[in-house]
Amino acid sequence: MTSTPTAGARPDEVRRHNRTALLRRLHVGGPCTRAALATELGLNRSTIKALVDGLAESGVVSERVPRARSGAGRPSLLVLPEPLAAVVLAVDIRVEQVAIALVGLGGQLLGRDSWNLRGRAGEPAEIITRIIESTRLLAEELDVRMVAAGVSVPGVVRRGDGYVHEAPNLKWTDVPLGDRLTGAFGVPVRVGNDAEIAALAEHLRGAAKGSLDAVYVSADIGVGGGVISDGTTLRGTAGYVGELGHMVVNPDGRPCYCGSHGCWETEVGELALCRALDLPEHSPRGVVVAELRGLTATQITTTLGDFTRWLTMGLITIVNVFGPELVVLGDLFTALPPPLVAQVATTIAERSLVSRAIGGTRLVTSTMGTDAKLIGAAELAFESVLDTV
Amino acid sequence: MTSTPTAGARPDEVRRHNRTALLRRLHVGGPCTRAALATELGLNRSTIKALVDGLAESGVVSERVPRARSGAGRPSLLVLPEPLAAVVLAVDIRVEQVAIALVGLGGQLLGRDSWNLRGRAGEPAEIITRIIESTRLLAEELDVRMVAAGVSVPGVVRRGDGYVHEAPNLKWTDVPLGDRLTGAFGVPVRVGNDAEIAALAEHLRGAAKGSLDAVYVSADIGVGGGVISDGTTLRGTAGYVGELGHMVVNPDGRPCYCGSHGCWETEVGELALCRALDLPEHSPRGVVVAELRGLTATQITTTLGDFTRWLTMGLITIVNVFGPELVVLGDLFTALPPPLVAQVATTIAERSLVSRAIGGTRLVTSTMGTDAKLIGAAELAFESVLDTV
Repeated sequence: MTSTPTAGARPDEVRRHNRTALLRRLHVGGPCTRAALATELGLNRSTIKALVDGLAESGVVSERVPRARSGAGRPSLLVLPEPLAAVVLAVDIRVEQVAIALVGLGGQLLGRDSWNLRGRAGEPAEIITRIIESTRLLAEELDVRMVAAGVSVPGVVRRGDGYVHEAPNLKWTDVPLGDRLTGAFGVPVRVGNDAEIAALAEHLRGAAKGSLDAVYVSADIGVGGGVISDGTTLRGTAGYVGELGHMVVNPDGRPCYCGSHGCWETEVGELALCRALDLPEHSPRGVVVAELRGLTATQITTTLGDFTRWLTMGLITIVNVFGPELVVLGDLFTALPPPLVAQVATTIAERSLVSRAIGGTRLVTSTMGTDAKLIGAAELAFESVLDTV
Repeated sequence: MTSTPTAGARPDEVRRHNRTALLRRLHVGGPCTRAALATELGLNRSTIKALVDGLAESGVVSERVPRARSGAGRPSLLVLPEPLAAVVLAVDIRVEQVAIALVGLGGQLLGRDSWNLRGRAGEPAEIITRIIESTRLLAEELDVRMVAAGVSVPGVVRRGDGYVHEAPNLKWTDVPLGDRLTGAFGVPVRVGNDAEIAALAEHLRGAAKGSLDAVYVSADIGVGGGVISDGTTLRGTAGYVGELGHMVVNPDGRPCYCGSHGCWETEVGELALCRALDLPEHSPRGVVVAELRGLTATQITTTLGDFTRWLTMGLITIVNVFGPELVVLGDLFTALPPPLVAQVATTIAERSLVSRAIGGTRLVTSTMGTDAKLIGAAELAFESVLDTV
């Protein structure tokens, strides 16, 4: 709507722009021939040649003969990203566990570590210290140096500086996480809301790949949502991402720590699921999943009737508000019985004006499992370095 | 996140880009000195001079001595958009009324016409014919030729071609409105959802001017919302805008035509307000407004208690989902008693996690009245022509 005037692009700016686009293509899409790169990026072959030669010289990409040859003639060489040319740290802080990974260019996971929090989630300083120490050990062990870091936090995060305003389920308030980690690591650190980060992962490498308008629903103790709108992640004022878990779905529902009653998180989060399944709250994830997998068709209807109702209400609102072509259920929701998911999808189709208008919204479960946030955190880090590799 | 590589910008492309930016600045922001244009657009004064001279030569802008002189020395000339250099048609199709206007460059309303539908809203062909005829008469009367048109429709619209999938309160289904009007007028026609269009108007010329993240709530018979996210209007798959009126706020509420129960529209739209005020449904707007204005403080609490509750629930969800810095209440909601609006704002502040994180969300009523959609429709039209004026 508004447009910022720009001075004319200089040749070195154009070259740099094209170099980043090529690198991004290789990083996200994997090995590719020069010819295909030219077609996909809309650049001529001599431009591609110059870029690839430059990148190969710096050791950022390499070229090799493809394993499977098709057709006659000289095989077209494949251009591959070199994992060690840019290594980033990915951190996933969850309520019960912290996971870290070092990830190479192209998305290869080079090594990982994780530890349980065992109810000690209330101490950010301790967690931050352990993240810093574990990262140093892992980097030493792998003999790599990282160039950036991305961190997933289940809370309200200011994107500019990675300040965690509130992460209620971690019991964190006002934690300058971004500054602390930047100070310790001396590399650019980006911190994001966990659902937004998982949405990024699904968009780049998962179920929402190729989809311009999708919503990822994350479900642990907290419930959140990440929105891909017109190909980018949606954010609100000051970079805060929306909290889909605090849509009010049941006005007569349980009180939520946020001050409302019957928030989506309160009605369909892990604690609500434990109550519905008659398990103690905070039961181990494995127990909850096993219980879900063991339900008969009748039990799904009776035991999970209310849960299904509120899950559906929230999804109808999401579909009507954002008009996505795809909703990805992540985390704990990947363990929901398929008949339940199918029933929810049917109800959405019947009751959503917008879903009907856009020819239906697909409802799928994530195939990334609990790694979505770790993968997304790595991508968040790569976003800031691909133009400087 | 993803980036499309572009070839280097050629000088004529840069010039065209700068010309459009300058014209947009004058169109939206009004008269401005060359010096201020240079500063605001980040262009040097010789570039501005060349652009303004070119535009003045084509009669698109003019220059004049400012009325109020400040300081000594030769006064800086003001550059003004020439209204007749580009005239667009704005159409606002509402449930009870259709309004059209011819609007000049700079936003000047050159002339308008409107007619009541008196319950004959079910016949799109008739309405379209009348729009075409009335526009021809108005253009003849004003002796202007329009270069584009923008149309506001209270329904689900495909932005690419202005196809109205469903406008339930007009009882329209599958109306190729964009194609019909393009065929009749022979100029580019853009059709949009009314709430989105009003949000555009508020963003460019109203309460949300300068705000990058704002939500406009439209309330007639139907309730809708337009979202400005990071400075642009938010759209879902295939350009369909979300339907905030179909968030489910009251799961035990009244059935909605969309298939759900207790949609926001059903609980806080004009019909719900009529019921709360003990007026017949479809009472004239003037009667509803007079009744609202006459309520005592006690009556506001008793009579509008449920209405206020559902209005608040919907707004909490909107604030948590989008994290806007500003919510603009439009249309009928501009007539809500100020104490009611204040109470809603207080409850949102208490109960919204995201509002607290971003330092509060302001809740204001629109000052554009019922013209917001007409103004927005003109802006929608200008969006497509400013680069070709």
